[in-house]
Amino acid sequence: MVKGKITKLSVSDVRFPTSLEQHGSDAMHTDPDYSVAYVVIETEGGLKGYGLTFTLGKGTEIVVCAVQALSSLVIGKDSEEIVNDFRSFYRLLTSDGQMRWLGPEKGVVQLAAAAVLNAVWDLWARAEGKPLWKLLVDMDPEKLISCIDFRYITDALTEKEALDILRKARDGKCKREEHMLKEGYPAYTTSCAWIGYPDEQLKQLCSKALSEGWTRFKVKVGADLNDDIRRCRLLREMIGPDKTLMIDANQRWDVAEAIEWVSRLVEFKPLWIEEPTSPDDILGHAAIAKALAPLGIGVATGEQCHNRVMFKQLLQSQALRFVQIDSCRLGSVNENLAVLLMAEKFQVPVCPHAGGVGLCELVQHLILFDYIAVSGSLENRMCEYVDHLHEHFTNPVVIKNASYMPPKNPGYSTEMKDDSAKRHQFPDGEVWRELRASRRVQ
Amino acid sequence: MVKGKITKLSVSDVRFPTSLEQHGSDAMHTDPDYSVAYVVIETEGGLKGYGLTFTLGKGTEIVVCAVQALSSLVIGKDSEEIVNDFRSFYRLLTSDGQMRWLGPEKGVVQLAAAAVLNAVWDLWARAEGKPLWKLLVDMDPEKLISCIDFRYITDALTEKEALDILRKARDGKCKREEHMLKEGYPAYTTSCAWIGYPDEQLKQLCSKALSEGWTRFKVKVGADLNDDIRRCRLLREMIGPDKTLMIDANQRWDVAEAIEWVSRLVEFKPLWIEEPTSPDDILGHAAIAKALAPLGIGVATGEQCHNRVMFKQLLQSQALRFVQIDSCRLGSVNENLAVLLMAEKFQVPVCPHAGGVGLCELVQHLILFDYIAVSGSLENRMCEYVDHLHEHFTNPVVIKNASYMPPKNPGYSTEMKDDSAKRHQFPDGEVWRELRASRRVQ
Repeated sequence: MVKGKITKLSVSDVRFPTSLEQHGSDAMHTDPDYSVAYVVIETEGGLKGYGLTFTLGKGTEIVVCAVQALSSLVIGKDSEEIVNDFRSFYRLLTSDGQMRWLGPEKGVVQLAAAAVLNAVWDLWARAEGKPLWKLLVDMDPEKLISCIDFRYITDALTEKEALDILRKARDGKCKREEHMLKEGYPAYTTSCAWIGYPDEQLKQLCSKALSEGWTRFKVKVGADLNDDIRRCRLLREMIGPDKTLMIDANQRWDVAEAIEWVSRLVEFKPLWIEEPTSPDDILGHAAIAKALAPLGIGVATGEQCHNRVMFKQLLQSQALRFVQIDSCRLGSVNENLAVLLMAEKFQVPVCPHAGGVGLCELVQHLILFDYIAVSGSLENRMCEYVDHLHEHFTNPVVIKNASYMPPKNPGYSTEMKDDSAKRHQFPDGEVWRELRASRRVQ
Repeated sequence: MVKGKITKLSVSDVRFPTSLEQHGSDAMHTDPDYSVAYVVIETEGGLKGYGLTFTLGKGTEIVVCAVQALSSLVIGKDSEEIVNDFRSFYRLLTSDGQMRWLGPEKGVVQLAAAAVLNAVWDLWARAEGKPLWKLLVDMDPEKLISCIDFRYITDALTEKEALDILRKARDGKCKREEHMLKEGYPAYTTSCAWIGYPDEQLKQLCSKALSEGWTRFKVKVGADLNDDIRRCRLLREMIGPDKTLMIDANQRWDVAEAIEWVSRLVEFKPLWIEEPTSPDDILGHAAIAKALAPLGIGVATGEQCHNRVMFKQLLQSQALRFVQIDSCRLGSVNENLAVLLMAEKFQVPVCPHAGGVGLCELVQHLILFDYIAVSGSLENRMCEYVDHLHEHFTNPVVIKNASYMPPKNPGYSTEMKDDSAKRHQFPDGEVWRELRASRRVQ
């Protein structure tokens, strides 16, 4: 059981120079340096919890500053009291009377809250000696519900409906858990076709992925239509007609443009178009979804959907066919639980966003919980996977046969190797000092 | 004409201890310390521009940190080139490939962009020797349009439609400008009925406001229904049946709760209910608007509506009858121009949010421009006014007969008195040191 006051909270700016090799490049984010604001909390008993939120480099220091601003709400709190009334603690961090003006529940302050809350969940799971997914799977429905702030979503999901969903899903839980431990959760790969990769690299990576057993592939699109046609054709020819292809525009288009552009790619049979337009444009997504449905292409979005209120509306307006939760954009497990339950209520499959740094490590826990204890289904479901930066974690993801194998160590898989975190500190870690010395970065 | 490179950008954290007297208190923000992130830019020619964004105290340092992160995109840029392609500069600040992950265009990073861009607009207006409203009123429609980023709003407003609106509004511009110079722009007051004020204070302030000629009053509601009924009754009795009363819940309710609660206040004939629920809940606002329309109560929102994409949807879904733009939440004049033009297209009146610190000084310019050069109408229109903290500005607002009199000094009225800014620096200004010494704050 988790107990004792939280006596320390430290936060650091850890960046990886991924832009040097165009890893993670897309139509809107052409040169990301995958980074995290990395939080470590410690109780008076000496137990530690690790949390992070993902960023793209520049501005990570702003999130660090926001975590520092939140720290006064965390230090001195009793960890047992936090988890016994987690809903109140969530609201304390996200609805402070002065700080909420900076959001509310969006942007930098929500990213910071996510990092802190992720550390608390890691602490809790470690204290229970369970991986986070198992902590959630074993938790009473009433207790799970008590972690969720239902403010602003009761018109879509009441506490009672949420409880009913969880109670109903108890049937077959053990069997599904066994299934996951044996087979893992199905994944797709985004590693082959970043927008900055030349065709030759795309081909090599795709061959390699096919040989490793991958059957679902995502291609970045949206910068140039002819490039998109050429790259989609290349990939579709390599993977054949039966495997799955998805496309991702990373918010590049306006509404009409999205419909027109995607219509030109229909011959490559994409399962979904991801982030066709502004992540804030619920009605725009709904219009695109309606126009593309006859073409058999669904709309997917969520990695920049900033809170449960936005997901609620995307579901209410039938704007998406795939819900892409993110472990570090939303307010940690607390807010993701709300979204998983709303998705189940609306019967829309969840296909988490991952990649970056740490996102795969974290989100696998949430989607395992979703399958075992909420949706009970794998139909039209898969979790994103990107093959980068796992080596910096003490418990990196394990992929077998293109599936996420359930983590077994206690916690939320959030802990980074000390040496990695230290060497990649920005701006004074060894890696960055060397890059500046060799003039590879300014 | 504005010219020369921008050579300096400074930013500071300026806070006023308004929470000590419950000024600005509402159902969600019970103890605000009105504050600004205050930006000063300077060109090589020595011209200065002042900008700010408004905050509620805690966390202002996060916005300061975000302004510092943006400063590398500003320093060294030629001011003439900026205003000659202002759309590109807007996008540079709001869509940086690494920084946009922290928004995009929302929360802390958008507030920071607003502060910086407000300073650029102030600089431009000063260089032209005109108050900002006059700079805008005199500007060619083509030039005005070139300041707006139309990304994500073309399904609601095209460049051509925007141009047509501006061209059509040329008729009668001179007459409307004269009218404003003589009579001013109609205002309403929020100073009487903050939620933390006891009834006696409310009565005194209301008497005073009536004697000064105010005819439109706003009451904060949403914390306790019986309090609301008592306070609304008190105010309605004092002002009589013909003057205007508005109510403001500052996001306190869920959707069904909002409809039920407001229905209980219908006897006091509020013109609008402001911020009934989450600022992100477009569909929720639409549901509330639909339910309350038969009661003759309109929905108003906008002070926490984070960008033009959200306003677009509020308009598209008929979710509001009053558009409340904010000079410091949206991306400065650039983004507010987009919203004013969309509001005109959808024929919804604009009633700006003001108050706080500096918001009245800034937004009066935008609403003067709206009347003279966009909407040409005063029907159902008024600008919020709150009687606090104006003494800290070098060109404070001038109110006559409950109307904003057009500013005459060059610029955007954004400059604070040096002494005020210095004494209220947080945490080391004299005011804060004294408050800590006397133990009135920690």
